[in-house]
Amino acid sequence: MSIQKPKGTQDLLPGEVEKWQYIEAKARELCERFNYREIRTPIFEHTELFQRGVGETTDIVEKEMYTFLDKGDRSISLRPEGTAGVVRAYVENKLYGEPDVSKLYYIGPMFRYEQPQAGRYRQLHQFGVEAFGAVDPSIDAEVIALGYTFYTELGLKDVTVEINSVGNPACREVYRGKIQEFFAPIKEQLCKDCQSRFDRNPMRILDCKVDQKYGEGAPTILEYLDEECTVHFQAVQDYLAAMHIPFRINPRLVRGLDYYTHTAFEYKAAGIGAIDTIGGGGRYNGLVGQIGGHDQPGVGLGLGLERTLLILQAQGVELPTTKPLDVYLIGLGAEAEKEVTKQLQQLRLAGFRAEKDYLGRKIKAQMKSADRFHAAYVAILGDDELTKGGITVKAMATGEQHTVRLDELVSALARMKEQNK
Amino acid sequence: MSIQKPKGTQDLLPGEVEKWQYIEAKARELCERFNYREIRTPIFEHTELFQRGVGETTDIVEKEMYTFLDKGDRSISLRPEGTAGVVRAYVENKLYGEPDVSKLYYIGPMFRYEQPQAGRYRQLHQFGVEAFGAVDPSIDAEVIALGYTFYTELGLKDVTVEINSVGNPACREVYRGKIQEFFAPIKEQLCKDCQSRFDRNPMRILDCKVDQKYGEGAPTILEYLDEECTVHFQAVQDYLAAMHIPFRINPRLVRGLDYYTHTAFEYKAAGIGAIDTIGGGGRYNGLVGQIGGHDQPGVGLGLGLERTLLILQAQGVELPTTKPLDVYLIGLGAEAEKEVTKQLQQLRLAGFRAEKDYLGRKIKAQMKSADRFHAAYVAILGDDELTKGGITVKAMATGEQHTVRLDELVSALARMKEQNK
Repeated sequence: MSIQKPKGTQDLLPGEVEKWQYIEAKARELCERFNYREIRTPIFEHTELFQRGVGETTDIVEKEMYTFLDKGDRSISLRPEGTAGVVRAYVENKLYGEPDVSKLYYIGPMFRYEQPQAGRYRQLHQFGVEAFGAVDPSIDAEVIALGYTFYTELGLKDVTVEINSVGNPACREVYRGKIQEFFAPIKEQLCKDCQSRFDRNPMRILDCKVDQKYGEGAPTILEYLDEECTVHFQAVQDYLAAMHIPFRINPRLVRGLDYYTHTAFEYKAAGIGAIDTIGGGGRYNGLVGQIGGHDQPGVGLGLGLERTLLILQAQGVELPTTKPLDVYLIGLGAEAEKEVTKQLQQLRLAGFRAEKDYLGRKIKAQMKSADRFHAAYVAILGDDELTKGGITVKAMATGEQHTVRLDELVSALARMKEQNK
Repeated sequence: MSIQKPKGTQDLLPGEVEKWQYIEAKARELCERFNYREIRTPIFEHTELFQRGVGETTDIVEKEMYTFLDKGDRSISLRPEGTAGVVRAYVENKLYGEPDVSKLYYIGPMFRYEQPQAGRYRQLHQFGVEAFGAVDPSIDAEVIALGYTFYTELGLKDVTVEINSVGNPACREVYRGKIQEFFAPIKEQLCKDCQSRFDRNPMRILDCKVDQKYGEGAPTILEYLDEECTVHFQAVQDYLAAMHIPFRINPRLVRGLDYYTHTAFEYKAAGIGAIDTIGGGGRYNGLVGQIGGHDQPGVGLGLGLERTLLILQAQGVELPTTKPLDVYLIGLGAEAEKEVTKQLQQLRLAGFRAEKDYLGRKIKAQMKSADRFHAAYVAILGDDELTKGGITVKAMATGEQHTVRLDELVSALARMKEQNK
């Protein structure tokens, strides 16, 4: 019996993997323009990191982590998200001692033991940025702009940005009381999850996925922001407007955990039918202190690449699936085959994407293979041509043929490629 | 107390991560020229895959795997190497049904629970290629050439290629008897590992890391190759010569496992003192059948990126550690700061690498920040200039200054950048 891939995982094969390469290259190139630099943290971390950095009572940590003991009896978990590891690395490597703001990005696999469904895998992939060390609202706006630019440059249409302020711990404490007051009379009618949120995290009731109607008319955090929070939130909006990033304020947008402060945001786009959240983030001035003891402000965003690809596909955006060959070499006869192998290496060294046959196929089958690889040129060498030192080059688009000297094949193809640019 | 990264893992930070980006981009770009396409398989697989595909009695599987039960009680292991997963995916996704040879590459993290030391980590990173479906010796030569080209284009000096043939199962069976005959009289003098190899895998005694002297004068596999193997091995050499890949035959070079056939090869380079093996591979016509039941020939190579970086460093090869900024914007005053945020986004949308300050620093500190980012230009905007619609652009290399109109900043910088190319 052959062995299958683990449940909830994917093989990304040629034809599909090029789409991933494309969106990852876009993320990297965009981060370079925005002056974010990559950080790579380990695939697994001490379990305690996620208990502290994601939250012990979250579904992710309670139910969905791949946690195990290593051979040294340490409790280790495959990372379920990217921020905690980046914060840990920021503190452990003392990046807070550097003179500039630490603007970091990550991209890579995360792991959650969930029931697999369309677009949801146990090995998933996220792209995120984190900026540490600045309270300036212009960097909140920059992070929001980066995500928006990522989606729009990929070709997503009708991306909307929703923003809110979740205040600071002081004004949130006041608001927390107000929201409990509001929900207390109807607590029994709320869904089970929301009933348990009532004491732990009443703000999240507004975010209920089961029934939104009970939250209608609830007080919003915006009514309880203090001076500092109001000024910060207004400045974020001013900067977004200056950058021409369209946004709308959604006062029900909350982030679950205590270390979130000020800005919260989400991106929405039309996928298959419903409008979906495709990414989001916020400011978390309490997180670095919670994980590492060094109090430093931070703001970040995270988004799922599976989700991004799904929505791109739903919107009919075409991503590259192949990269065409420059030239396919055909050798007819044993000596010609050896010469072809030599020319192939020279072409590749000169930067060409070049290929030949490895299956001893007849010329017709080799021409078909060249077609499948979208070769711009086919170069054919017979043993008799070889003795004369020539090779036939055929342009696949026009059918035009030339004979060129073997020792000039590389430069002749370079010329032709240049002319066809 | 702050949390540390797990033992044997690394954080790759800005300044170091750019070297990784560089060698990975080289690997990807090289694979495109050689017409290898990426495949991505999961980070973890069913443990059985590695027992079958790496070998149950190997150190890797016996001692070094991160194996655990998932929440569904499946035995799962973090992949310790790349080939087994690629073979599994090749079979499971029926790539053998495609008309062309499957030329695949992978690049990514692997996991081995070993004692960490210089250049050896528990999370390590490998680049490898696998070509399935062809017995043609020109593809053995191509794989060898790809690895050699990878090292030399990175700037490694004095890379040598050692090749051998380990024959096919038939001639290896004959050789196995001969080698046991040779070592039988001195079996007791061999190291402990080699004594246990005597029955299991006597060819590996030649590969002994403890004491090579007992193998001197031992018969070599090359004396026992049959017609098919001799022809194949000669053809590989002819193709390598045609491609100008320097190589030497090392008849002691063996690969441990039964599914290896014909070609075996290793790359060596001078690191710190000793000549080290930096990568290798071979043909394994038995592996696909062993893992998935479909008998298909294969040939591949694998190499460690940590090792590659270490040797590049030892040889004094400099890799990029930063990417310079195009422009650093400085706003003096609240209105100017808002305009700077707007210009920043426009510059980034136009493809510039652009940055500003987020720490409310004075102009002198901002100029220093621009220097740290190797900015080619600094653009300075004061509130008074803003009212006149101009901005001062300073070329950092020459100190030359111009005032340009704000609404022409993007095009003016594009012109200057073009002129300085």
